[in-house]
Amino acid sequence: MLIECVPNVSEGRRTDVVDQIAQAIEGVPGTRLLDRSSDASHNRSVITLAGEQEPLKQAILAMFEIAVAEIDLRTHSGEHPRLGAVDVVPFIPIEGATMNDCVRLANETGAEVGRRFQVPVYLYEEAATNPGRKNLADIRRGQFEGLAAKMSQPEWTPDYGPSAPHPTAGATVIGARMPLIAYNINLDTDRLDVAKKIAATVRFSSGGLPHVKAMGVALEDRGIVQVSMNLTNYLETPIFVVFDAVKREAEGHGVAVLESEIVGLVPAAALIDTARHVLQLEQFTSAQILETRLRDPR
Amino acid sequence: MLIECVPNVSEGRRTDVVDQIAQAIEGVPGTRLLDRSSDASHNRSVITLAGEQEPLKQAILAMFEIAVAEIDLRTHSGEHPRLGAVDVVPFIPIEGATMNDCVRLANETGAEVGRRFQVPVYLYEEAATNPGRKNLADIRRGQFEGLAAKMSQPEWTPDYGPSAPHPTAGATVIGARMPLIAYNINLDTDRLDVAKKIAATVRFSSGGLPHVKAMGVALEDRGIVQVSMNLTNYLETPIFVVFDAVKREAEGHGVAVLESEIVGLVPAAALIDTARHVLQLEQFTSAQILETRLRDPR
Repeated sequence: MLIECVPNVSEGRRTDVVDQIAQAIEGVPGTRLLDRSSDASHNRSVITLAGEQEPLKQAILAMFEIAVAEIDLRTHSGEHPRLGAVDVVPFIPIEGATMNDCVRLANETGAEVGRRFQVPVYLYEEAATNPGRKNLADIRRGQFEGLAAKMSQPEWTPDYGPSAPHPTAGATVIGARMPLIAYNINLDTDRLDVAKKIAATVRFSSGGLPHVKAMGVALEDRGIVQVSMNLTNYLETPIFVVFDAVKREAEGHGVAVLESEIVGLVPAAALIDTARHVLQLEQFTSAQILETRLRDPR
Repeated sequence: MLIECVPNVSEGRRTDVVDQIAQAIEGVPGTRLLDRSSDASHNRSVITLAGEQEPLKQAILAMFEIAVAEIDLRTHSGEHPRLGAVDVVPFIPIEGATMNDCVRLANETGAEVGRRFQVPVYLYEEAATNPGRKNLADIRRGQFEGLAAKMSQPEWTPDYGPSAPHPTAGATVIGARMPLIAYNINLDTDRLDVAKKIAATVRFSSGGLPHVKAMGVALEDRGIVQVSMNLTNYLETPIFVVFDAVKREAEGHGVAVLESEIVGLVPAAALIDTARHVLQLEQFTSAQILETRLRDPR
């Protein structure tokens, strides 16, 4: 079973602190540090690691140990909104892992963070304990500076840990979500209004497809426009459904699709589902994929 | 790097001999025995294993050791044509392996088989040293019984080992080929003539698509017909090309495609290429697949 974790830490300037965190993660056998990137103006670092449940939990706890000791939110500033020293910890099901595995891991990790570091924990997305806490932006509203007041309201009692902010490390949001696919479709036109109209039609927030965020942008160097999207649940809204919807809308404006692009990583299943759909493979199961079988023969 | 190997051994009746071979393979660390199936009427067993190059070579040599000692072609009978105790050994590139890696492995293994067991070796398919030896059926024509006469012809000098058959183990065919995809398309009709005409149009042997073998068959229990195919090189003739061709031909006969099916295993790349095609993903590389990245982060 393989779970991915993408913790966001409120430190993007002191390289030595981020180095310490990376080393702490790499020191846990059974996890793999896949990526780290720090942004000085956001004063924030995004770390990507993967592993099985127990090693992943240990790696996240090792990360908290350093972040809580080294990061002081009272003197922290940066462009990105934040609630705590470790700001958000999503667990993401990859190979052989279910969303339930990730929800359980979020709970186990959250309980231990609350107990060991006395940092309050909110569970979000698929791990949320009530609908008002599903959305990260809602939990983070008011940021570290507004946290004491927020937590005094009964509806913002944390899921784990003390009912008051940690004096320097604030609070942490831990949860489970699907992998995010950054997906763009380029149109054979320079009409930004067309890209914006299509984005408005397909995105969920204005009545479009569930789990789709979209905006229209101009690619000025190429003289074309793009529908730039985030797909937050490729199982419920598959890539090919999004492609077909954008293509159909574009055709309605007399515009052709030039190409599409996936930015960064994509789960194999998202592409395999697309093939299954277009080839009308009714009986196909992922156990028929050679590489899956080779890794897990029984 | 992962290479698959599917040796065919001329023993399908004496379970103890096939057991010994399986144990010999499993005794080599770094290889994985994925499957074995024996057919008594063919008197032949097909073994599937996978691993890195060096362990795979050692496993195949361990298999030869037992097969050469235990199998005597002079008294062997069965329905399936055969040339030797170990009849054919194809190496198949899977993850991170190229066809060149498999050709090199076929040569290294062949050289060692010739030297250590004094069994003559013909290289076939992508490893063939001349076009007349590419096709397994051509090499095997005349079978074990005709081998001494065949090998006395200059064009049938083996690639490795002695220029005369091994007295009991015959000769062996070793090579490299693409994974085979067993792919069927079901049509919404009971007209077998339509399936047969479409098969004739798409198969290479009657002027159709390269690397496609096809026949029309009736699925009598369902009252429909099927174009049943083997795709022997999905890189050169992708699955979606085959699907589109059959669909177009069927439409020409006024018949709809009901569904398609992949029998057994398929390399993930064959499906991912299909998604890449339909989504017009121009810049996509396999390094963007999350699972690939998770296994091989740098």
